[in-house]
Amino acid sequence: MNERRLELFPPTTRLEKMPTGADHLSIGGCDLTTLAEQYGTPLYIYDQATLDGAVDEYRAALRHTYPHATGITYAGKAFLCVAIAQWAARRGLWVDCTGAGEIHIAVTAGVPRAQILVHGVNKSVAVLAAAVTHAGTIVVDNLIELHRLAPLRKREADFPDLWLRVRPGVAVETHSYRQTGQDDSKFGMSSAEAMEAVLFCCQQDLPLAGVHFHQGSHFHDPEPIGPGVDRVLDLIATLRQGSGWTPAYLSPGGGWGIPYHEDDLPHPSIADYVRFVAARVEEGCEARDLPLPILHMEPGRSLVARAGVAIYRVGALKRTPHRRWLLLDGGMADNIRPALYGARYSALPVVSPLRPVTDQAWLAGPYCESGDVLISALPMPDVQPGEMIAIPASGAYHLMMGSNYNGALRPAVLWVSKGQAQLIQRRETLEDLVDRDLALQESVAV
Amino acid sequence: MNERRLELFPPTTRLEKMPTGADHLSIGGCDLTTLAEQYGTPLYIYDQATLDGAVDEYRAALRHTYPHATGITYAGKAFLCVAIAQWAARRGLWVDCTGAGEIHIAVTAGVPRAQILVHGVNKSVAVLAAAVTHAGTIVVDNLIELHRLAPLRKREADFPDLWLRVRPGVAVETHSYRQTGQDDSKFGMSSAEAMEAVLFCCQQDLPLAGVHFHQGSHFHDPEPIGPGVDRVLDLIATLRQGSGWTPAYLSPGGGWGIPYHEDDLPHPSIADYVRFVAARVEEGCEARDLPLPILHMEPGRSLVARAGVAIYRVGALKRTPHRRWLLLDGGMADNIRPALYGARYSALPVVSPLRPVTDQAWLAGPYCESGDVLISALPMPDVQPGEMIAIPASGAYHLMMGSNYNGALRPAVLWVSKGQAQLIQRRETLEDLVDRDLALQESVAV
Repeated sequence: MNERRLELFPPTTRLEKMPTGADHLSIGGCDLTTLAEQYGTPLYIYDQATLDGAVDEYRAALRHTYPHATGITYAGKAFLCVAIAQWAARRGLWVDCTGAGEIHIAVTAGVPRAQILVHGVNKSVAVLAAAVTHAGTIVVDNLIELHRLAPLRKREADFPDLWLRVRPGVAVETHSYRQTGQDDSKFGMSSAEAMEAVLFCCQQDLPLAGVHFHQGSHFHDPEPIGPGVDRVLDLIATLRQGSGWTPAYLSPGGGWGIPYHEDDLPHPSIADYVRFVAARVEEGCEARDLPLPILHMEPGRSLVARAGVAIYRVGALKRTPHRRWLLLDGGMADNIRPALYGARYSALPVVSPLRPVTDQAWLAGPYCESGDVLISALPMPDVQPGEMIAIPASGAYHLMMGSNYNGALRPAVLWVSKGQAQLIQRRETLEDLVDRDLALQESVAV
Repeated sequence: MNERRLELFPPTTRLEKMPTGADHLSIGGCDLTTLAEQYGTPLYIYDQATLDGAVDEYRAALRHTYPHATGITYAGKAFLCVAIAQWAARRGLWVDCTGAGEIHIAVTAGVPRAQILVHGVNKSVAVLAAAVTHAGTIVVDNLIELHRLAPLRKREADFPDLWLRVRPGVAVETHSYRQTGQDDSKFGMSSAEAMEAVLFCCQQDLPLAGVHFHQGSHFHDPEPIGPGVDRVLDLIATLRQGSGWTPAYLSPGGGWGIPYHEDDLPHPSIADYVRFVAARVEEGCEARDLPLPILHMEPGRSLVARAGVAIYRVGALKRTPHRRWLLLDGGMADNIRPALYGARYSALPVVSPLRPVTDQAWLAGPYCESGDVLISALPMPDVQPGEMIAIPASGAYHLMMGSNYNGALRPAVLWVSKGQAQLIQRRETLEDLVDRDLALQESVAV
């Protein structure tokens, strides 16, 4: 069983036999034990080869299945920091930024303007101004936004391309928090609003270039994407008929899932997903006599989740009547997904990971909250205090939702590649925790 | 209906008639509109009079109902920053700190050693060392911790008091994430472990002084606390019989709930809760021939939640087939409780809050996630883009779980009292977002 868990880790994961006889987990040619001792725990590790491999898989699948130009936008919301934005830019990916904060990270990383795409359901005037200054593409969520954008056009010669976010009216099967395509979603425009937006852009001479939709995140079967693609192509045909405008770009968003637990294996491949979407778009355009758009995928999780591994140290052990508890030094402050979505993870000890399972364990964090349980009822070997545990598939939506709950310091993040590790995000310090604090005035009477 | 919502706000909340004829919400003598314009939104405001009033209510109830010494520990996990730790210390409260991070905040605030109490389910050697250096009391969660503490005793003359955290085996009725007292909880010791701990402390001459338990957080009926108190008193009697030791302190934890929504009104009072616990402890001790312990309450939420108000600005409006959306400039990044616990909040416009309701509204944040909805189906008046909305009962477990999701900047926090407002936590900046980031080495081949 534990062997299967290795498949959840980056493909560069190896067992290295030590002089002591113990097997050590290594990733990207780097010994996890050594890294954890040097940088401390909790520690997050990103493996470049896994990231590169996923990009290659998307690119190959698009090349083989779609007969027109394609592109990939990396979804920053899954994991964004300066280093990964630099990696994405060097790989020729666009970087999807939500809000002024993510735009600032991308700009700091030196991502070229043409590769910055801005998303968001409620962009303020300030966010739109930042987007106009720094982005190559803005995905317009609603008409209010469009009306706020129009006057900014006058002040900026090099205005970004605009895409419209539309609601296909159908969502994929996933947790309700991750469904976005349904009619009563907070995201995007109805068909009538989209028509109004197109006519407004034509009239105002705004550079409208694409249509975007997104049906939800972390789904495992591409089929439900089909009706969404069809509905959006219907809408595009209607817009074309009503305005003469045809989008150069079509983005069916992202959201392809990944395996988090050995029970999720085997998981359908990125190629399966891309093949389905590409064929549906191609056939759909042909059926409606539409020119093929440039197909832009926006994968976040399926590019980056498997590249990330979280390493924790076991502190206390505990046995309650029906449970064996392994109490870790991280938990819901760095990974809220189990508490928020009921996400089901797996884990292996970092040293001798394949030793025999004894019984089930509950892996919990140190925080004062019963929801702070990362993994429930996972068959595990005997584990001693002080041992380290690695949780695979930790690269997406962990650190971006990270908090200082119970005074937790946000973890250090390493980048590993070909036997080299470098720090790409330093661990928070105690001083950071009070950096924004001001003392209560002495005059405050109590 | 809107009038009832005012009861959820701090008792200092007023409607001030402006020269324009509009009513403005004010709190602690400060006009919310003025504060939001000066400090920006999202903005959190803490009202000192509400905090002071809640402390007074606890103290009066304890004085009237418990015939021995009592104390109150403020639960930092609900909301901790330097200023509120200073307020707590000046009010003579102890400050409960979980982990080295919260200890550092309390020490920075100048909280005296005797008023620092350290909690935590998995305290590392480093956390225990910090606790030994800075705390007056350490609540020991498990035997491993106790064995780690013993050697630290030799190096420190002024060693903190130790309390034992025990599992009463019964929880209160609340969200499962907030239940902590059940037998299979990750928290505390079984009765057998507690006996072992007492004998260990006697043998090692460790200053064991108290027993702590906690059955869960945000409950509204004190009755289920009763069986927990009884079981812990049974355990104390057994420990006394088996070791001769009797705790000087007994802490039944905290967790008393508050009203978040007008449907939660009227809510039983702090006095109801204190009266019940005090009587149960007194009667239980008498029945078991135990000397009365010093009764230490640990309220977090019921002290601080109502004192806090969150102010957001409405950006876009949207109508989907069955919903009116008010899209705010904050959401799950500063308040994850609706997504995490299904918590149900209420809200009022900051200007003319009592104008007639038109229909229901869904108040959502700007983040790329369908779970980012703060309030669903709340009857609201007509609201225009640019208006400000205040959400009451926002003082506990919002900012402590705050994140930078989608590049969100954590909000500014103000302290208001008698017409004066002061900044106690500055808003995060774009520069803060990349402060921990390091660039990818040029040598990284892509």
